[in-house]
Amino acid sequence: MHTLLILSRRARDYHALIDSAHLPDLAITSTTDAADAASSASSFDLALGEPALLRQVMPVLTAVRWVQSTWAGVEPLLDPACRRDYILTNARGVFGGQMSEYVFAYLLARERKVFERQASQAAGRWDPAPPTRLRGKQLGLLGVGTIGAALARTAKHFGMRVKGYTRASEDSGDVDEYFHGPLADVGAAFASDLDYLVCVMPDTASTRHLIDRVLLGALPSRAVFVNPGRGGVVDEAALAAALQDGRLAGAVLDVFENEPLPADHVFWRLPNVLITSHTAALSAPSDIAPIFIDNYRRLLRGEPLLYRVDFERGY
Amino acid sequence: MHTLLILSRRARDYHALIDSAHLPDLAITSTTDAADAASSASSFDLALGEPALLRQVMPVLTAVRWVQSTWAGVEPLLDPACRRDYILTNARGVFGGQMSEYVFAYLLARERKVFERQASQAAGRWDPAPPTRLRGKQLGLLGVGTIGAALARTAKHFGMRVKGYTRASEDSGDVDEYFHGPLADVGAAFASDLDYLVCVMPDTASTRHLIDRVLLGALPSRAVFVNPGRGGVVDEAALAAALQDGRLAGAVLDVFENEPLPADHVFWRLPNVLITSHTAALSAPSDIAPIFIDNYRRLLRGEPLLYRVDFERGY
Repeated sequence: MHTLLILSRRARDYHALIDSAHLPDLAITSTTDAADAASSASSFDLALGEPALLRQVMPVLTAVRWVQSTWAGVEPLLDPACRRDYILTNARGVFGGQMSEYVFAYLLARERKVFERQASQAAGRWDPAPPTRLRGKQLGLLGVGTIGAALARTAKHFGMRVKGYTRASEDSGDVDEYFHGPLADVGAAFASDLDYLVCVMPDTASTRHLIDRVLLGALPSRAVFVNPGRGGVVDEAALAAALQDGRLAGAVLDVFENEPLPADHVFWRLPNVLITSHTAALSAPSDIAPIFIDNYRRLLRGEPLLYRVDFERGY
Repeated sequence: MHTLLILSRRARDYHALIDSAHLPDLAITSTTDAADAASSASSFDLALGEPALLRQVMPVLTAVRWVQSTWAGVEPLLDPACRRDYILTNARGVFGGQMSEYVFAYLLARERKVFERQASQAAGRWDPAPPTRLRGKQLGLLGVGTIGAALARTAKHFGMRVKGYTRASEDSGDVDEYFHGPLADVGAAFASDLDYLVCVMPDTASTRHLIDRVLLGALPSRAVFVNPGRGGVVDEAALAAALQDGRLAGAVLDVFENEPLPADHVFWRLPNVLITSHTAALSAPSDIAPIFIDNYRRLLRGEPLLYRVDFERGY
């Protein structure tokens, strides 16, 4: 018999979805409250939930052998002070569609001048200024995992050229040109002709402040930076400076080093910044529960689990 | 020897592009001015240009045998008072990409709440309201020619379901369900579950005010109407009433019965209308000149020309 702790703001939804799969040999306890979960924590061998909540109970989840994160990003559980004597799997393969809708909403809004036309309408002004086009423009992806691959596919649909920066992988056939190695070496070649730079990298020790003054300086001044990934990857002071000096045309920012973005942060007031409050891709229980269910069946069959996180690598 | 009149606001661009094709047996005269063109009009057997300009000189283009329109819509040349003793070809197959960028800019802007988030940002407010998704939503296309097919393809890319209303054609495999026949008969089945209705029909006698009170009434109140096609297809009074009464969630309007949209028109002031001033798809000489060049070579070889307009049908 396995005993599963569901610790999630959407505990009720996850409980119902997993119940409805009628998984064998599984007893489920669900709660939205970490303190509540801690009271009987030593009995669980499995856990499912948000990393930020699970982090609070990991010290007392003494029998846990597998944790399924409902998020893609598992930073709270990577804290070196936290145990690593269990299998951690995250959510992948379900955010590509949402991320694609998010990123291309803002790329198309820019090309089609949707904010400018709204302003013209408010002024009662017929505004025949021609739009520009995504077709033929260059997209640079920092990170090409399942999300980056989905973005590359949509970019190709719209006739863009796609450059991808990865550690080593070249899995997406929709990327026209790959770059690897230190950005100090390849950053200029990667960035110098981009119209859009989109960051979908995980937040790890090796990606921290990867987007710095040098990389931002390598972008053409027409470029727009889009970050639906992780705030820690960006040197926010360098980004703010580039946006204020006109060395970068604009930024669409979903994630920040501190969230919610502090009220006095300069990003709120920059006219060429759009803020989307960490909504680019949300973990829907209907998307995530099937990942747990599939992995649980793998566990019972003794097969490797999908989307296992490498604690050292950080994703 | 053939003699070509280029009568276009972009006459210089068209002249240079066609010159550079080194077409045999072709003398070119180009102007932006209809009065200028009329002075030597009887010598031209070919013409290329905007229908609204060409309409002014058709009575004196006595020797013309083929006219290539730079627009998709050729309404000015369909005037029953105007000659029809020549071959009229229009521009097709080049607007699908632009139309797709236009339509999906606004569909994604709605799903991703881009205007609402901009307002939150202006108020300094962290706004975690979840977005909605295109995936799974229903798109209805009124008209599935080359533009409609491009929209259907993009809709399928984003995981939408696509319904198509056409006279008879079922050429696009990206349409999940086709509807034909009078809208009085099939309109309710076509419209009753749509999230978005997009009109890309030509303006002809049989499409005039096709989008009327009855069809708008068949849409669910959550639906948004997008018109990058032709203004004459819409009963604007019925549309305004549906938008004011909340029977329709919103409209994105590029074209109108009278353009520029008159300053006192109610559409300017409706909060659920977005106006884009006839910019959805522009005729770029770099897109249109190749159509003329290809058709000219067909003419020399005695082959049928591409994109011939049926004067009776109107497209």
